[in-house]
Amino acid sequence: MGPGPSDVDPRVLRAMAAPLVGHLDPAFLEIMNEAMELLRYVFETKNQLTIPMSGTGSAGMETCFVNLIEPGDRVVVCVNGLFGERMADVAARCGAEVARVEAPWGRTIDPADARKALRGGRPTKILAVVLAETSTGVWQPLAELERAAHEAGALFLVDAVTALGGIPVAIDASRIDACYAGTQKCLSCPPGLAPVTFNEEARKVVRGRKGKVQSWYLDLNMIENYWGKERFYHHTAPVTMVYALRESLRLIAEEGLTARFERHAQNGAALHAGLEAMGLKLHAEAGHRLPVLTSVAVPDGVDDIAVRRALLNDFGIEIGGGLGPLKGRIWRVGLMGHTSRRQNVALFLTALEGILGRLGFGVRPGAAWQAATRVYGG
Amino acid sequence: MGPGPSDVDPRVLRAMAAPLVGHLDPAFLEIMNEAMELLRYVFETKNQLTIPMSGTGSAGMETCFVNLIEPGDRVVVCVNGLFGERMADVAARCGAEVARVEAPWGRTIDPADARKALRGGRPTKILAVVLAETSTGVWQPLAELERAAHEAGALFLVDAVTALGGIPVAIDASRIDACYAGTQKCLSCPPGLAPVTFNEEARKVVRGRKGKVQSWYLDLNMIENYWGKERFYHHTAPVTMVYALRESLRLIAEEGLTARFERHAQNGAALHAGLEAMGLKLHAEAGHRLPVLTSVAVPDGVDDIAVRRALLNDFGIEIGGGLGPLKGRIWRVGLMGHTSRRQNVALFLTALEGILGRLGFGVRPGAAWQAATRVYGG
Repeated sequence: MGPGPSDVDPRVLRAMAAPLVGHLDPAFLEIMNEAMELLRYVFETKNQLTIPMSGTGSAGMETCFVNLIEPGDRVVVCVNGLFGERMADVAARCGAEVARVEAPWGRTIDPADARKALRGGRPTKILAVVLAETSTGVWQPLAELERAAHEAGALFLVDAVTALGGIPVAIDASRIDACYAGTQKCLSCPPGLAPVTFNEEARKVVRGRKGKVQSWYLDLNMIENYWGKERFYHHTAPVTMVYALRESLRLIAEEGLTARFERHAQNGAALHAGLEAMGLKLHAEAGHRLPVLTSVAVPDGVDDIAVRRALLNDFGIEIGGGLGPLKGRIWRVGLMGHTSRRQNVALFLTALEGILGRLGFGVRPGAAWQAATRVYGG
Repeated sequence: MGPGPSDVDPRVLRAMAAPLVGHLDPAFLEIMNEAMELLRYVFETKNQLTIPMSGTGSAGMETCFVNLIEPGDRVVVCVNGLFGERMADVAARCGAEVARVEAPWGRTIDPADARKALRGGRPTKILAVVLAETSTGVWQPLAELERAAHEAGALFLVDAVTALGGIPVAIDASRIDACYAGTQKCLSCPPGLAPVTFNEEARKVVRGRKGKVQSWYLDLNMIENYWGKERFYHHTAPVTMVYALRESLRLIAEEGLTARFERHAQNGAALHAGLEAMGLKLHAEAGHRLPVLTSVAVPDGVDDIAVRRALLNDFGIEIGGGLGPLKGRIWRVGLMGHTSRRQNVALFLTALEGILGRLGFGVRPGAAWQAATRVYGG
């Protein structure tokens, strides 16, 4: 129940134990086709260029920036958590002129600030934002940012690492030009692949580059020839990981996106209710809390590490600590994919209540789960 | 029996079906330590910085170049096959001034040519060479190149993607400064990780950089803080792939490096003898043929694709075709790791003999395996 990797369905684990075939074997090419088709379903897009990159989520981030940016391009990056910071760092390493739009870690980005930044210099090539900030638990609304980006003639780039498969991303309906995700969050697949999707606008930018992409490994102009009809060898695809991705996406298709989002929303709401009933404070801005990743303030006088160690050693539950300025100040609890289950909510609330009680933090036994139960309508 | 991915031992497949733990979980940190220690054994090095990068072999290549090169640095790249070409491309994308030392695809690099190139300009930062060229089957001798590099004050960088675990790499004894490999060849682990090792000289270069590494994802100055004592979060490690790597390295330690190299040498020699007894011509320069990857000329009048299709459909055997200038001209047969077995040699020779006979290419039934048997001393 940490911020990822999430638990993996046994069907996905079994898929990984299948024997290897070559990365140009006709049987594998079929599996690639199915994985791409299923990715389009989960991203809710018709984008042709929708593929898993051979690296973890951060490689997906780097894929978007190295392919879209040429040295000197202006990029506006929304920074309200660790992954916004990372985007700014990655963009700068590509030679971009980076303008930052900031909000405190735990608050959403104000679209008015983004508009100001978009106007504040030379024409902007990209507006980049994190939809689900894993470091804070904030769910960023996209609609106004999207309008601001497109009115300014910029591409709209979204980090959906922790979002994809857990909350709506809806690439086409949201008019997102380029987007990256990771497999180890709400897709409930082991870490190792980074799904990306580029619409025609974004593809045109990549194809029309003046210079080569600075990363050979992540160069989409070459990689799309391997995933496309040509099947031109680029690098050896991580075959086993593609087996796993296909199986995890099949599970999503079987459940259905709508049902899946509802499950995540309900379990997240139950967790939030339980934590608040326990007297704890949720860290993320009210109204913008992710159901898939919950940040909760470590209460005064309670030892962050002692609580996490007791959860891990006595209950086998891993949760995350705070990062950067939130180190030692929050816990991060993931309810992603296969991990997002009622029994996990019940177990976690019960375990935490007991541990906090033992540490002298006043809790009323059973109150948390009672509050959660009301969310489930029980 | 293609040029990789090789077959994977069932123990490695089972290791991948283990449940996920977090990338900062104490249990996982232990697994990382064990994987690093085993990698040092296989690389035959004491290098502290010996870790698996979170990408396939080409990401390992890019790791070496992006970390060691700053714009304007002079790099001498030995090019006698596809992977030498790729190194030249990757180095140029890092802003290097690339000087090429060439040999025909199938011949070794002449150290005299490398010496000339090292002298032919400003001081050279890196001499880069492929030890086992997967595109040609050539085994490049390193000793003279190493001396040339170090006499010129350059770092000696070696591509060991297809070598590691199949033929000696011996980092410390060979005085290699930086080296990368892949998991899907002679380590017999699925593709998805790229072991790299940097000695103190190379590390100093990375630490003393003037500018940031252009790739955030592959920045060793940050990544060694995750794999080192600090355990500082960088990106989510591909947990399942690390399970697999550890298990495949354990299998190597159980077999022992010497026995493993002998097994590869013997099966390779048997395959070579069998192919020649069949009247086929080996493509790589005599005396410099890899036992782990054999290139053989497609005989005149024989349909490359028809033979490979029959091998795959009738016998379940995948082999590789030629790449670049060798497209349609050679077959590439891998005997790597778990695939390097006497029964595979026997099956492949028998299958190929039958298929060629059916296509009207004059072969004497049984001759190939008879010749191979003599290598085995049977």
